[in-house]
Amino acid sequence: MRTIYSPDHARHHGNSELIDGKLQPCFEKPERAHLIRARVEAVDLGPIEPPAEFGLGPIRRVHRPDYVAFLESAWSEWTAVHGEYDALPLVWPTPGLRRVLPEAIDGRLGYYAIDAGTPITAGTWTAIRASANVALTGAAAIANGSEQAIFSLCRPPGHHAGSDFFGGYCYFNNAAIAAQHLRDQGAARVAILDVDYHHGNGTQEIFYDRADMLVVNIHADPKQEFPYFLGHADETGAGEGEGFNLNLPLRWGAGWEPWSEALEEGCRRVAAFAPDALVVSLGVDTFKQDPISQFRLETAHFPLIGQRLRQLGLPTQFVMEGGYAVEEIGVNAVGVLEGFKDA
Amino acid sequence: MRTIYSPDHARHHGNSELIDGKLQPCFEKPERAHLIRARVEAVDLGPIEPPAEFGLGPIRRVHRPDYVAFLESAWSEWTAVHGEYDALPLVWPTPGLRRVLPEAIDGRLGYYAIDAGTPITAGTWTAIRASANVALTGAAAIANGSEQAIFSLCRPPGHHAGSDFFGGYCYFNNAAIAAQHLRDQGAARVAILDVDYHHGNGTQEIFYDRADMLVVNIHADPKQEFPYFLGHADETGAGEGEGFNLNLPLRWGAGWEPWSEALEEGCRRVAAFAPDALVVSLGVDTFKQDPISQFRLETAHFPLIGQRLRQLGLPTQFVMEGGYAVEEIGVNAVGVLEGFKDA
Repeated sequence: MRTIYSPDHARHHGNSELIDGKLQPCFEKPERAHLIRARVEAVDLGPIEPPAEFGLGPIRRVHRPDYVAFLESAWSEWTAVHGEYDALPLVWPTPGLRRVLPEAIDGRLGYYAIDAGTPITAGTWTAIRASANVALTGAAAIANGSEQAIFSLCRPPGHHAGSDFFGGYCYFNNAAIAAQHLRDQGAARVAILDVDYHHGNGTQEIFYDRADMLVVNIHADPKQEFPYFLGHADETGAGEGEGFNLNLPLRWGAGWEPWSEALEEGCRRVAAFAPDALVVSLGVDTFKQDPISQFRLETAHFPLIGQRLRQLGLPTQFVMEGGYAVEEIGVNAVGVLEGFKDA
Repeated sequence: MRTIYSPDHARHHGNSELIDGKLQPCFEKPERAHLIRARVEAVDLGPIEPPAEFGLGPIRRVHRPDYVAFLESAWSEWTAVHGEYDALPLVWPTPGLRRVLPEAIDGRLGYYAIDAGTPITAGTWTAIRASANVALTGAAAIANGSEQAIFSLCRPPGHHAGSDFFGGYCYFNNAAIAAQHLRDQGAARVAILDVDYHHGNGTQEIFYDRADMLVVNIHADPKQEFPYFLGHADETGAGEGEGFNLNLPLRWGAGWEPWSEALEEGCRRVAAFAPDALVVSLGVDTFKQDPISQFRLETAHFPLIGQRLRQLGLPTQFVMEGGYAVEEIGVNAVGVLEGFKDA
C-alpha cells in the first residue's frame, strides 16, 4: 500500500494546549507522524511518496472562504499584536451570545474556534496546507483508479474541523476534503467511516444535509468525552441528509467486543450505502494505553479492523487522525493497514 | 454613604486565567476589594457593614436552578477527577455543535462557560454567595427606603454572568440579582446603568425581553474587545423588551469627551424611563492605566460620573464590577461615590 507523506507537518508544533484546567505540552506533536512513517518503512508497507500541490480550490469545497483566509493570516495578525508565541482564543460565541465576526484577532480566534486546545503557530498554515495535499493526493489516486487502497499520513489531523471552525488539534478537515474531491472526480457516493476515539464533529457538520455522503462515527460517548457537544445517537442527518449520518457512541472502558460490534454495524451501513469509495478517518487513540482516551483496544485488535474494512471490497483511502500513545502509535496505525493489505 | 462588604470574597482567588494565549496570574484578585475597602475607610465615606443572608431564592430569580446547582457542586466534582487545582473548561458549545448537557465535569464546565478566563476554585462558591448577599443587602436597603444611595462592594463581579453561564470573572450576576430584588420588593421599573469598560453581556441577556428593566451599557466596542460576541448598538431588546436595551459602544482610546457624551445619552434614557430605582454596575477599568483595557479616563473624571448620576435624583445602588489597575482602583471607584455623595 502506498503512503503519502510530507515532512512539512513538522512545521506545526504547538507549545501547549489547555487540558484538564492546565496548559500542558501539546499531545498532538510531530513525533506522532515520524513514528508512523518509521513503522511504514519498518514493515515495508509500500512506497512513501510526497503529495502533489492542489491549491486552495478543493479545500474551499468544504471550508468557507472566510475561514480559509482567516487561517492563512491568523499567525501574522496574532504576532502583530502579541509577539511570536502560540495563538489561543479566550472566549467563544456560545448560546446567549451572537456569532458576529470581531475585528480584533483575539475575538476572531474565538469566532472560528471551538476549544482552547488547538494553538495556531508560525508553521501551522504550511503544515495544514501540506496535510490537505496529502489527503488530496490520496483521493486523486483512488479517483483515477491507480490505487485500490492508499494511506494519507495526514498531520495535523482534521475530523474536528468544520466548515468554518477549528478545534481538537484540527484545522482543515482532511477526510472531508478527500471525500469531496472523490465526489468531484466522479464518485456518485462516498462513505466516511471514522474510527478515531473522538467523535468527528467537523465531518458530521460538513456533510450533515447531504445524501451523497454517508458519515459513520464509532467513538466515545460525548456525554463523557470531548467534543461533548456533538456525536449523539439521535443525530441522523438533516433535510436530504436525513438517514446519512450514523453515530455509534460507546461508553468509557469499551474494549474490543462492543467496539467490534459497532464496527460491524458501521460496515453494514456502509455496504448498504454502496459507495464508490470509502474514506477511513483512522485514529488509533482507541488503544488502551492512549494518554487522553478511555477505550481498551489492544495492539492485536488493530489488524482486525483492517481485515473487516477490506471485506467491504471498496476503493479505500485511509486518512490519519488521532492517537497519542506515542510509542505504540506507529505499530497500531500501520497494524490496521497491514490487516487490510493482507486480508 | 453606607458600604456593604464581606471578607468572604477573598475565598475566591484563582491562580490563572487564559488571556493573550497564555495562562497568566488572575487579574481579578482579592486585593481589588481590599484596596476599595481601604479607600472607603480613608475618605470616611460612611459605615461599612456585613451583608445579611438571603439564601438562594433571590439568586434563582435570575439564574436557572440547574446553573446554580452546577456552581455549588463544580469544585467537588472537578477535584474528584482532577485533584485540587483550579477548574477551567476546554471546549464550548459553539455554532455547529449542540448545547447538550454532558455528564463529565469537563464537559459541564464548557456547557456553562463562555471563556477560559474564569476559574472555579475551592472558595468560589462561598465567595459568590457572599457577593450576591452584598448585592441583595444593598437592594433591600434601597427597597425599604432606609437608604437613598448605597455601595455594594461586590467581588467577584457579576455583569458577564447570564441566566445560565459564567465568564469574564463573573459567576452570579450581582447587579441583575439586585435589580430583580428591587422589582420583587415593589419597584415597578428598575434601570441598570453599566459603566464598566466591558459590555455587561450577562445583564443584557437576563433582561433582554423585559420592559420593566431598562439596561444601558457604555463600553468598549465588542468588535475590538471582550466579550466580542455581544454589546453591539443594534441590540435593542426583544419582544416586550424591545427598546429597553441600549448599547453605547465606544472605540479603543476613548477619553472623557466621548465617554461623557455616552453617559449623558445613557442618563437621558434612564430619566425618560422614570424608574423607581437605579442600579449602577460600577467598573473603573475605563481608567487610562488599567492593564487590560483601552479607554483613557483619568482619576479626576470618576467623581464627575458620580455627580452626573446624582442629578438623576433616583434611589441608587452601586454594585462593584471590574477595574484592574490595582493601585488606583480604590481611588477611582470611591471617587465615583464621593462625586455622587457630594453633588
